[in-house]
Amino acid sequence: MGKVKNVLFIMCDQLRADHLSCAGHPHLKTPAIDALAARGVRFPRAYVQSGVCGPSRMSFYTGRYVSSHGATWNRVPLSLREKTIGDFLSAAGIKVALAGKTHVLPDLEALERFGIEGGSALDALMRAGRFEELDRYDGHSPPGGESGYADYLRRHGYVSDDPWSDFVIAADGPNGEKASGWHMRNVHLPARVKEEHSETAYMTREAMRFIDEMGETPWCLHLSYVKPHWPYMAPAPYHNMYGAADMLPLNRDEQERANEHPVLAAYREMEESVSFSRPEAPGIVRPAYMGLITQLDDWLGRLFAHMERAGRLDDTLIVFTADHGDFLGDHWLGEKEMFYEEAQRVPFIVVDPDPEADLTRGTVDERFVEAIDVVPTILETLGLPTQDHLLEGRSLLPLLRKIHLDSWRDAVFSELDYSFREARKILGRKPNECRAIMVRTDRWKYVWWQGYRPMLFDLANDPKERRDLGNDLTYAPIFREMEERLNAWAKARKSRVTVDDAYVEARTAKHRQHGIFFGQW
Amino acid sequence: MGKVKNVLFIMCDQLRADHLSCAGHPHLKTPAIDALAARGVRFPRAYVQSGVCGPSRMSFYTGRYVSSHGATWNRVPLSLREKTIGDFLSAAGIKVALAGKTHVLPDLEALERFGIEGGSALDALMRAGRFEELDRYDGHSPPGGESGYADYLRRHGYVSDDPWSDFVIAADGPNGEKASGWHMRNVHLPARVKEEHSETAYMTREAMRFIDEMGETPWCLHLSYVKPHWPYMAPAPYHNMYGAADMLPLNRDEQERANEHPVLAAYREMEESVSFSRPEAPGIVRPAYMGLITQLDDWLGRLFAHMERAGRLDDTLIVFTADHGDFLGDHWLGEKEMFYEEAQRVPFIVVDPDPEADLTRGTVDERFVEAIDVVPTILETLGLPTQDHLLEGRSLLPLLRKIHLDSWRDAVFSELDYSFREARKILGRKPNECRAIMVRTDRWKYVWWQGYRPMLFDLANDPKERRDLGNDLTYAPIFREMEERLNAWAKARKSRVTVDDAYVEARTAKHRQHGIFFGQW
Repeated sequence: MGKVKNVLFIMCDQLRADHLSCAGHPHLKTPAIDALAARGVRFPRAYVQSGVCGPSRMSFYTGRYVSSHGATWNRVPLSLREKTIGDFLSAAGIKVALAGKTHVLPDLEALERFGIEGGSALDALMRAGRFEELDRYDGHSPPGGESGYADYLRRHGYVSDDPWSDFVIAADGPNGEKASGWHMRNVHLPARVKEEHSETAYMTREAMRFIDEMGETPWCLHLSYVKPHWPYMAPAPYHNMYGAADMLPLNRDEQERANEHPVLAAYREMEESVSFSRPEAPGIVRPAYMGLITQLDDWLGRLFAHMERAGRLDDTLIVFTADHGDFLGDHWLGEKEMFYEEAQRVPFIVVDPDPEADLTRGTVDERFVEAIDVVPTILETLGLPTQDHLLEGRSLLPLLRKIHLDSWRDAVFSELDYSFREARKILGRKPNECRAIMVRTDRWKYVWWQGYRPMLFDLANDPKERRDLGNDLTYAPIFREMEERLNAWAKARKSRVTVDDAYVEARTAKHRQHGIFFGQW
Repeated sequence: MGKVKNVLFIMCDQLRADHLSCAGHPHLKTPAIDALAARGVRFPRAYVQSGVCGPSRMSFYTGRYVSSHGATWNRVPLSLREKTIGDFLSAAGIKVALAGKTHVLPDLEALERFGIEGGSALDALMRAGRFEELDRYDGHSPPGGESGYADYLRRHGYVSDDPWSDFVIAADGPNGEKASGWHMRNVHLPARVKEEHSETAYMTREAMRFIDEMGETPWCLHLSYVKPHWPYMAPAPYHNMYGAADMLPLNRDEQERANEHPVLAAYREMEESVSFSRPEAPGIVRPAYMGLITQLDDWLGRLFAHMERAGRLDDTLIVFTADHGDFLGDHWLGEKEMFYEEAQRVPFIVVDPDPEADLTRGTVDERFVEAIDVVPTILETLGLPTQDHLLEGRSLLPLLRKIHLDSWRDAVFSELDYSFREARKILGRKPNECRAIMVRTDRWKYVWWQGYRPMLFDLANDPKERRDLGNDLTYAPIFREMEERLNAWAKARKSRVTVDDAYVEARTAKHRQHGIFFGQW
């Protein structure tokens, strides 16, 4: 183990924090990820800044809360104004590459307004959130989309205009007909694609190739898997590696449906929640989801072995996490977005190969982590400028290296903009009236909803979040305490993005040096 | 009078709301502005979004609060991401020109990052906040700065490397030596510049020339005077048109210095406050300040007469306002920034030539207006897209044309970032710890200070704001009510800037149309 030169930032899509064996899942096998945790620190209380891909990822990439970066939902482009890890590291000459998914949408209006020439290198970089795309692959992309995966599949014999739909997320039905993975009832079947040609395999090999090519030149790779995100269809042998008896108990009860919060009630009306509330659905979907995770783990094992052979485990900071979880029927919900732990809490493991981090290897750190901590951690580890005027997270390096800190955060925050969702229509709201902010402390989880009563969960007495206390005025003092936290947070967003703190310091009370002498008698 | 085709947006710099004869000043003469008010509506309760040039102007130009546009103080460039009135109107083919000051600083980092070629038309437009600069003149600019005013002066016989310093803000001392207007003790003397060559005269002629050149082509002109901002030296005959007996009574008493708020105390230690607290200072400075205002009024009279002859008063929407006021010794302060009425409240007159506005001509509307209302008012008047996803102000058109509204705002907000000021050093704070937000309702003015107790003034019983109640816990219920308003405001900032509400509407619950079929059983 040695000094950090490279960064491997691994993200899974829609992977729940409790779906790792090192996190206590009694049946799921994730030996490679467990081994990663044994070499580094696992943070079991790591939270995303929004329970949905786009805004969550933009927070990971910018180090800023959703209200600050403004990409409030999946279909909202990240403003070109926002800087990402790609800006920060490339300024230091470090190549920042992507294999897989980012969910970055191009800020087309800004590209046009700033006259950035279509097809130029700058255009490509700006469209890609400042990642150099080895092969970008966001999953469920249309045929002819930006990825090379479709051609790869065709080269390997999957002849189709849309090999992904016809092979990767399709199985053979009882009479040989196509059974699509879009239908959850089918995901117990094995995908038509061979395991070695599946998305997870393809992306891992992209990563290995990149690492080999870079040799001793420093790099940062965002290896961003599209799994275990839906469609939940897994290739053999992972499709039936687990059974319904292996899944975690469903976290739901009838009591949850009493006095439902209006927005939650609207989410429970949406198709994914209705489908996952079918009695048979979790037992079909969860085993496939678990299989996809073990497949990921197997490929990560191969990747880590590959890196070890090249000496890369000794000089590479590894961050392993996910953009959000998945309800899989818990709380009578499918998908994510709502503020329950199953969606908001994510796996989070950091391996710092520096000998200074030896003291913490294999430990579990219960302190709160947020997605926005990834960028500051990487910058501090590489000794790069800390960008304090932009970044709203904190570097985890002191936690990894047992450096004294006077304090650490005692709460985490997450946001939601549900304006693009059917829930908005159900509730009859306008696009700018659909905000929510969660604050979670050790004891409480509180959600402020624009235009509605709050939600409150007592995590000490109700760790499974079955009883929403947001209607119970005996908790008014807690409401107030949580509101105070939220409001202090809301007033602390970093909006002065054009100049940094050093610029401010250098110009404080310096008007006379600029020939301005106001106020002299 | 007729349909609006053009917009004349007049801004004065540092002009107090109470320094107009139509606003009740007993001695100051402003007949042209009074006549403007008689043709339109005067809003005596109009507030800026920050009591200092840069952030206030950026709010005027973007229609957004300071926390939203991020240019938190004079030396902070407006992010290129932010759109201004120049973007909105030029998209409709309307030329948006500037004569005078904007305080826009170029977002150099973004210009470089987006590869915008230096010297190109796009570069010029981006550097200028999307105004086409006829002659930009921000005042107190260094010799060789961007303005043509220095050359103009030289052509008219003011021979100097820096004719502004040597003639415009300089007088002859007792022995013919230069007496600089930077020293407030000198501003009772007449400037060496002839009145017809002074800044106000120069800019007004620029405006007249532009209006003539445009003929019948629609235009929007931002005529942005640098006066009566310091240096307070006026040319004859305005330098001694008023005397100390003509000035408004000083608004200060000894009681104000008891239990001073820490930030206020720091501001009172700064040189401008110390200077204005000299017994003789207001009596020297205020008459010159008043003279500069009457000079402005005289030139506005010429401008309006010029427009009338060309028929332009019949098809031009006129907005007259200022970027903030000036304490001039009130509250033991010089300059602005603090949240007293003298700095935060500004003149605000709108003339809508459309016959539909005839019902309100010559009236005074006591409803609250904010600087961010200017852009929405202009857009609605011209029938342009309302940019609801960006704009945080409200169009005043319904007020001008007596169109029914269900409600109007009952509070205004203003912000301060004092990180660039000596006060920060006095208080020993970091650049990101210097925020304040004011909310002013009909009855109360409340200021939240990051890291300090609040300020509170009871405007019903203490309209002169002499007694800060922010230490008095008997007002705790008012603190809470005001905090609630502030906090609701803080959580409603518009950060989703890359796509508009129509985009959201068109994509709500439309995933299936994009080939995404999640959640189906």
